Amino acid sequence: MSQRPSGRAVDELRPLSIEPGFSHHAEGSVLIRAGGTEVLCTASVETRVPPFLRGKGQGWVTAEYGMLPRATHTRGLREAAKGKQSGRTQEIQRLIGRSLRACVDLKALGECSITLDCDVLNADGGTRCASITGAWVALAQALKSMGRSAALTGQVAAVSCGLTKAGAVLDLDYDEDSTAQADTNFVLTADGGIVEVQGTAEDKPFRPEEFMELFALAQKGTKELFDAQRKALEG
Amino acid sequence: MSQRPSGRAVDELRPLSIEPGFSHHAEGSVLIRAGGTEVLCTASVETRVPPFLRGKGQGWVTAEYGMLPRATHTRGLREAAKGKQSGRTQEIQRLIGRSLRACVDLKALGECSITLDCDVLNADGGTRCASITGAWVALAQALKSMGRSAALTGQVAAVSCGLTKAGAVLDLDYDEDSTAQADTNFVLTADGGIVEVQGTAEDKPFRPEEFMELFALAQKGTKELFDAQRKALEG
Amino acid sequence: MSQRPSGRAVDELRPLSIEPGFSHHAEGSVLIRAGGTEVLCTASVETRVPPFLRGKGQGWVTAEYGMLPRATHTRGLREAAKGKQSGRTQEIQRLIGRSLRACVDLKALGECSITLDCDVLNADGGTRCASITGAWVALAQALKSMGRSAALTGQVAAVSCGLTKAGAVLDLDYDEDSTAQADTNFVLTADGGIVEVQGTAEDKPFRPEEFMELFALAQKGTKELFDAQRKALEG
Amino acid sequence: MSQRPSGRAVDELRPLSIEPGFSHHAEGSVLIRAGGTEVLCTASVETRVPPFLRGKGQGWVTAEYGMLPRATHTRGLREAAKGKQSGRTQEIQRLIGRSLRACVDLKALGECSITLDCDVLNADGGTRCASITGAWVALAQALKSMGRSAALTGQVAAVSCGLTKAGAVLDLDYDEDSTAQADTNFVLTADGGIVEVQGTAEDKPFRPEEFMELFALAQKGTKELFDAQRKALEG
Amino acid sequence: MSQRPSGRAVDELRPLSIEPGFSHHAEGSVLIRAGGTEVLCTASVETRVPPFLRGKGQGWVTAEYGMLPRATHTRGLREAAKGKQSGRTQEIQRLIGRSLRACVDLKALGECSITLDCDVLNADGGTRCASITGAWVALAQALKSMGRSAALTGQVAAVSCGLTKAGAVLDLDYDEDSTAQADTNFVLTADGGIVEVQGTAEDKPFRPEEFMELFALAQKGTKELFDAQRKALEG
Amino acid sequence: MSQRPSGRAVDELRPLSIEPGFSHHAEGSVLIRAGGTEVLCTASVETRVPPFLRGKGQGWVTAEYGMLPRATHTRGLREAAKGKQSGRTQEIQRLIGRSLRACVDLKALGECSITLDCDVLNADGGTRCASITGAWVALAQALKSMGRSAALTGQVAAVSCGLTKAGAVLDLDYDEDSTAQADTNFVLTADGGIVEVQGTAEDKPFRPEEFMELFALAQKGTKELFDAQRKALEG
Repeated sequence: MSQRPSGRAVDELRPLSIEPGFSHHAEGSVLIRAGGTEVLCTASVETRVPPFLRGKGQGWVTAEYGMLPRATHTRGLREAAKGKQSGRTQEIQRLIGRSLRACVDLKALGECSITLDCDVLNADGGTRCASITGAWVALAQALKSMGRSAALTGQVAAVSCGLTKAGAVLDLDYDEDSTAQADTNFVLTADGGIVEVQGTAEDKPFRPEEFMELFALAQKGTKELFDAQRKALEG
Repeated sequence: MSQRPSGRAVDELRPLSIEPGFSHHAEGSVLIRAGGTEVLCTASVETRVPPFLRGKGQGWVTAEYGMLPRATHTRGLREAAKGKQSGRTQEIQRLIGRSLRACVDLKALGECSITLDCDVLNADGGTRCASITGAWVALAQALKSMGRSAALTGQVAAVSCGLTKAGAVLDLDYDEDSTAQADTNFVLTADGGIVEVQGTAEDKPFRPEEFMELFALAQKGTKELFDAQRKALEG
Repeated sequence: MSQRPSGRAVDELRPLSIEPGFSHHAEGSVLIRAGGTEVLCTASVETRVPPFLRGKGQGWVTAEYGMLPRATHTRGLREAAKGKQSGRTQEIQRLIGRSLRACVDLKALGECSITLDCDVLNADGGTRCASITGAWVALAQALKSMGRSAALTGQVAAVSCGLTKAGAVLDLDYDEDSTAQADTNFVLTADGGIVEVQGTAEDKPFRPEEFMELFALAQKGTKELFDAQRKALEG
Repeated sequence: MSQRPSGRAVDELRPLSIEPGFSHHAEGSVLIRAGGTEVLCTASVETRVPPFLRGKGQGWVTAEYGMLPRATHTRGLREAAKGKQSGRTQEIQRLIGRSLRACVDLKALGECSITLDCDVLNADGGTRCASITGAWVALAQALKSMGRSAALTGQVAAVSCGLTKAGAVLDLDYDEDSTAQADTNFVLTADGGIVEVQGTAEDKPFRPEEFMELFALAQKGTKELFDAQRKALEG
Repeated sequence: MSQRPSGRAVDELRPLSIEPGFSHHAEGSVLIRAGGTEVLCTASVETRVPPFLRGKGQGWVTAEYGMLPRATHTRGLREAAKGKQSGRTQEIQRLIGRSLRACVDLKALGECSITLDCDVLNADGGTRCASITGAWVALAQALKSMGRSAALTGQVAAVSCGLTKAGAVLDLDYDEDSTAQADTNFVLTADGGIVEVQGTAEDKPFRPEEFMELFALAQKGTKELFDAQRKALEG
Repeated sequence: MSQRPSGRAVDELRPLSIEPGFSHHAEGSVLIRAGGTEVLCTASVETRVPPFLRGKGQGWVTAEYGMLPRATHTRGLREAAKGKQSGRTQEIQRLIGRSLRACVDLKALGECSITLDCDVLNADGGTRCASITGAWVALAQALKSMGRSAALTGQVAAVSCGLTKAGAVLDLDYDEDSTAQADTNFVLTADGGIVEVQGTAEDKPFRPEEFMELFALAQKGTKELFDAQRKALEG
């Protein structure tokens, strides 16, 4: 087994910061940094719901995800200029939306919508997980500003784990992610529940026991994320 | 615990058939039926590769997914008429493509592409899993027709499992799927490997031990799918 | 004059079958087979009308047409992936819609819509004519299921005829269609009326008397189609 | 039988003029006026062919059709603003293209393209027929300017006929067109051939003998159109 | 300093004509010709306003701009076929709309919309300025036809000026426009006000005193345009 | 005359900062802040040019502009999700591109492209001017990193001025911008040249002498911007 490119221990998160208030206008916002990955997460409250929920006495939480063209090593095409969002973008924003809805009581929210915008300013792997972890804080801020903190039913954070040349490791950066044999994302709750789990064999299938090892890393890693989220909310 | 709506045992697959040769022109094709779900899977060989692979001496396997407008209880809008594929469609076809690439040696394939089209003629839950299971057979047929069976490095099938009022159950139909507390899809190989695993809490987070129970059901269920795939290929 | 590639007599239809009930959910459905051409036709009833008809006390009948990517010899691009329907697709679905509206009393239908989806599973020429012939049966089934059979004012079927090396022939298959000097489509009613006629010189202009010959073939051919439609409805 | 709204005889064309040279830049152009219908037809020569014809030693003729937003009684949406061409537009431009290709020897044209743009400045029925009739003149001008008049193998013109309250009539204006029981378009050659024929029952099916009556009117009408085309070319 | 390519004096407009009534249906219309530039401007009245103005007791004036594919030396792609309007088109139509709204009292207009369609039939530079100058006449006609002439609060016209090899010149044609060092457009009112001014350095920055020189030319040029507009309205 | 809402003097810029290096990957980048307006400007170098410049021995400079959905008081729709860029966005990015091309010798740049992405993180008026001012610094950084500083032929900055209740004022914030009688943007060079000037009467036309007053403010304001740009480059 070789060392991780970053020199981190296999169960070590990247340096993390969650800075509230980056957006001047949003009801909730943080700039979350996980190593070289930086995502601006904002929560916007609107007093209307999508057509399929009108008059049902409940609210909605949804997410949109984007990446600035030069958040990456080589410039990517701007999706607004191409005229459509890629399948990857849609997949990620659907995941963020589902993950955050899992910790909100939509009836207690009342007939309004909260949109979580996660825009990647700098990318170095793990952008979807950082988005979820940051969006939870922005969501909690927004609910507080509405006087609806009671609608928040849980605490959700996400982290990626993978099988690399250094074995099973926590919180992959881009170098690790692009060469991993398997890549998993875990969205977990502070009380030990699973909100979403996704595992993909990139190169060859992996074994159930490897999957369990990755899961254990994720459980350790999200504990630290939950602490950071709480500090950001209190700060 | 109540009974399943269909009366099936918790670890019982729906009646399954894999009928080869439905398409008149494709290099490989099956009509797979899992209960009321029917998917036409075709494999089309083309002697060119996408731009990013040109001149690299390897091939490509990709998938597209569609649902006829009236495959469902109420008619859905035709995606060609709307002018774009939904996020759900893109997510599913990306999953099918990844899953099938996991069992092909792209270098052994040579510089050509195989497109797996999975079109749902009738839907009753589990269409993405049926698509993967059927597409594997169509892919194997196509590789055989090209004299490249050696490029097939494994056998892949998929099944959904979920937490319902009847507990953890195998192979959800639409009734179960739309009310399940958690929904998981497992793409496994015949030698026990994991190609892809996706678990989503629909209502409230689920526990790690519940996840393991669903995994065990999937392992049992895919065994039967692997047998049916082999019979369809031999038949 | 040479023989037809298929060995058929010049006034001989391809083997025809109209199988009802292929779709599990639609109010009307048939799988129509004309030689190697197979089209799934479904009729979907919805209790609303397009904006331009709201409050006018009448209904609407419309059609959509699609072709699975590998219905043809070489795989075609999926229109949903391209993001638009081709001119050919739109032309065909407009033709199907007009043809079927010609045999429905829209006032007697009441304020609801029937959408006829014609999806080509296998293509060997004549897909638009098979779509019309099959859609009429699905429409009749749907009207019956609504208790509105009285709104059906006529019986409509369609067939193509063309000038080939074997002279004027009935019901062209793909081989004939792609090399014909002239190609015509006739949509006729069981009582001898013309709903739609389209004739196109592919190579060089044709003579009025040749057109009359093609028309006579169509009159003979549709008689057999009308019988098959009635049998399918009764069966 | 009542009179025609315009007072014209049943076999009388609308006042016709074909004015060459309206466009300052095009290799061929006319402004054709048929009563209140005015279409600007230009022929543009480009020294390249579509991908499917490259290196085949032949040329291509194609057409595009458009209508200014206020060519009609009430303003229509601009197709460029809507972001797509309607099915009707596509159907018409495909018809114009096919009709004009029928009178050009594409091999004699050589490896270049001629695009016929038909833009309706004022609409009063019969715009597709006026487009074809005018485009033939613009095409002939363009071929002459290229020194390729020999590639023009025939003379093509088009006229609509219909069944109205005044019986079978020639060259419908908007008032007649919008209330006709049947509407037909005939694209004919000066030597009596049929290039394209389209007949549509708008209200109820029509009889074969009615169709023949309409055809006879079209033969008479196009004779006058052929004369006008020749005069425009000579003038 | 060299002469202008056209031989015009530096402060000389191109031959100008404003012909009313070109459109058969529009509430206002002119064909404006400035040298080789010809634009059909129509004003269409509709008794509804955009959503953001509903119920506010005021009207709206907007503009759309288009260019026929062969209005130019070489054929341009049809925007309706490309499926979107270019940035240039949008920029121009936004300019036309703003310019005309500057001379209408939207409250006095009442709850209705006037759309100004400016379609370039032949282009030789200065199409946006000709569009504004012509659209003002069409707008005045439409307001008169509605009995709302009082809502017209001013007279607006536009002209381009530029720095060329002949120095600062008025009313650039295409030859001058495509080689000018600087290009400016002035939208002015008859009482000496500025509605819009745009100046762009094409090659290298220009000096404030050069800008003033161009402005003076525009003031002279628009005086003649205002006279022509008034004549067209009276005529 | 009333005071400015911010209490600033009429010729006072908002607090300005230009922070280099915000992007981890781009060849040049700054985060520019002008009061509450924050724009991330990146310069990306690519070793290819657009098709129309291939083989001409010169390079290209272009710009793209975007606004995060919640950069504004109320959340705007994401352009990538809508599937197209608004006319406003296209107008702004065309302006930025033109402005920056005016200070680059494209031949000295060689056959490569520099794309300037200007993404608004927080908006409070003047985003297009801040984008230009910031993009110039990012461009200079990128040229330096390529060893092509000689291709930079000038220094460009932009500022808005307007007529408000406080008279002619410099550097409008959102409150002033949304109620100004006239709004102008000046893109100037450090040696006193005009690159672009745009003036728009929002409410009623303005006088030439008012325009001159705004111009003088812009000349004063850009002097301070030029200093800040130089400091950011040196820092």
